Amino acid sequence: MTNSTNHPAKSANSPRVVSFDVLHRFVTLAFEHAGLSSADARIGADVLTTTDAWGIFTHGTKFVRSYLHRLQAGGLRPQGRPRVAAEGPAWAIVDGDSALGMVTSVFAMQTAMTKARAVGVAYVGVKNSCHFGAAGYYAWLAAREGLIGLSMANDRPSVAAPGSRGAITGSNPLAYAVPAGRHRALLLDMSVATVAGGKVYAARSRGERIPDTWLLGADGHPTTDPSAYPKAGALQPAAGHKGYGLALLIETLAGLLSGAAFTWRVGDWLWDDGTQPTHHGAAFLAIDLGAIRPAGDFTSRVENMVDEIHSAPRAEGVDRLFVPGEKEWNHYDRAMAEGIALPPDVVASLQETAAWTGLDFEKSLPKLHPP
Amino acid sequence: MTNSTNHPAKSANSPRVVSFDVLHRFVTLAFEHAGLSSADARIGADVLTTTDAWGIFTHGTKFVRSYLHRLQAGGLRPQGRPRVAAEGPAWAIVDGDSALGMVTSVFAMQTAMTKARAVGVAYVGVKNSCHFGAAGYYAWLAAREGLIGLSMANDRPSVAAPGSRGAITGSNPLAYAVPAGRHRALLLDMSVATVAGGKVYAARSRGERIPDTWLLGADGHPTTDPSAYPKAGALQPAAGHKGYGLALLIETLAGLLSGAAFTWRVGDWLWDDGTQPTHHGAAFLAIDLGAIRPAGDFTSRVENMVDEIHSAPRAEGVDRLFVPGEKEWNHYDRAMAEGIALPPDVVASLQETAAWTGLDFEKSLPKLHPP
Repeated sequence: MTNSTNHPAKSANSPRVVSFDVLHRFVTLAFEHAGLSSADARIGADVLTTTDAWGIFTHGTKFVRSYLHRLQAGGLRPQGRPRVAAEGPAWAIVDGDSALGMVTSVFAMQTAMTKARAVGVAYVGVKNSCHFGAAGYYAWLAAREGLIGLSMANDRPSVAAPGSRGAITGSNPLAYAVPAGRHRALLLDMSVATVAGGKVYAARSRGERIPDTWLLGADGHPTTDPSAYPKAGALQPAAGHKGYGLALLIETLAGLLSGAAFTWRVGDWLWDDGTQPTHHGAAFLAIDLGAIRPAGDFTSRVENMVDEIHSAPRAEGVDRLFVPGEKEWNHYDRAMAEGIALPPDVVASLQETAAWTGLDFEKSLPKLHPP
Repeated sequence: MTNSTNHPAKSANSPRVVSFDVLHRFVTLAFEHAGLSSADARIGADVLTTTDAWGIFTHGTKFVRSYLHRLQAGGLRPQGRPRVAAEGPAWAIVDGDSALGMVTSVFAMQTAMTKARAVGVAYVGVKNSCHFGAAGYYAWLAAREGLIGLSMANDRPSVAAPGSRGAITGSNPLAYAVPAGRHRALLLDMSVATVAGGKVYAARSRGERIPDTWLLGADGHPTTDPSAYPKAGALQPAAGHKGYGLALLIETLAGLLSGAAFTWRVGDWLWDDGTQPTHHGAAFLAIDLGAIRPAGDFTSRVENMVDEIHSAPRAEGVDRLFVPGEKEWNHYDRAMAEGIALPPDVVASLQETAAWTGLDFEKSLPKLHPP
């Protein structure tokens, strides 16, 4: 769309610092404009703004534009209502009704948490969903209320199996979050590929070669040339058969067991016909610490483990050993104190969102002035 | 111990082919000799012999000798009885009572399966256990009865974190098994390290260099010299922060949440004082397919997925795309038809076991003659 109707020079060259609340409000208004209820719009905004605050800009507000496109085309239903389609004491299957993936996923994780509080552990599978953003958000929903959370999803294949020529599984994200007492929650959000496809795109657009561990070419062999992807080739699975094996576990829990589409039956949420649902699947697990460990016991154990890692010997030149999520929480704390420094590609995408929805970008997202 | 009191030339140079049943019987007798009940001895034998039949000789009957050592010294208790120490509808904590790790782990997975059949999903954490052999066996226990099984354990640290100088986590195995209809169960059994420590030992004993992706040296930087491990250095985590992150998830479920020892508090089951328990932890998850999916529906979906992978395009020179566990099941089928071809190091270890227990190795393990 337009490169920038407002301040092209600024948006192309420099990050833009906005407060969490301002960005959250902008995204909420954009989703409301697409027909979501205020409550659902706020859920979508919270997932995507929190993701940006963690510094995971590849999965945050940059994609509001793409979700709006599907909401407008009808493949996503603005008034879709996720519901429990089947359930037992420790499990449920949620039918997403083609609602925004974030709305369905928050509903599903909350269902898992409610059940886990009753019986200790719960699995919730999701069908009829779409791209859900960053898996870590839903895991953290559980952790911030004292449960261990796991979150995963399938996607249209983009990742090879050992020996394959072309993609076999999705990038199938897996996240977990663990409450960690006086430390921030442990938080891992990973895909099963060596690197995100976005890194390959970026190298391609800069005309650069890539390490030979990222991509397989059209012949199924490692390549340093990113130019053919994604039309041909596939991302390499992380740690070979291990990443591939994890991808199939995630496909099993998020796709096969949930009743969602799986592998090539999942639609491409970015590029396929926007009028059709993508039928993504997802899975959420919650484990209630309060039920299983004596009060305070788990907390002191996890604090000990984190302290031990922080004080362990480091390789020369390494300032600190991080636990999973620590870098994201550091980014989050800075973002809350100083605002979120949106990279240029995110700013450009939000400007397109503004143009599309008629929201005034400059008014909606003023440069943050410290109070 | 003795290099071989029987046929040193044969044992040193060639594999030895024995039938599953004969090997199973030998291991059962060895565990009975160490004071286990017949029932417990058979459980231990079944885990280790099945592991050999899968071709995972690094985790099978080779270690009977080491378990016997701990059983005799008292760190493992021959008459130990695992019991449920705490429980809810969808979870339990099992106290292993320092019984053989295989006995405790089978009890724990069976507990998880019983609970999953009642409520859909269950987690069982284990404390006061020891090395449990191959994680995959317990996952498969669930899959062969129609449940999805996951199995994991912690161990004394041997694997680095990104930036560390020395080990931070155990190799922390993770396994899953998924019933796959007319196909054999999907079965993945992986550690969080790039390679098993045994590969580093093997290269060291042959005086060879190793790839620079396996090990970190005493300075925390990649090395091709295996000579200092394990006194100094640490295995590299698979896929860097991903393997490290998974290691901490496993440590959380198997160590922190179970009430077991964690990280450096776990004893070294091979080298530490045999009179003391190692306090390993483990975790098992079972998901009852029958409760969650309509009959036959999951089966046809997983069969479709496996068929799709088998017929997907392959890189030049690749004959077949395997699903997780397929190579192990092929080995298993050959082993059942033609006998298990035990590698020389396993034969040597079993000969030591025979010498120690007074079992007649040649009589107990005759060369297999096809019927």
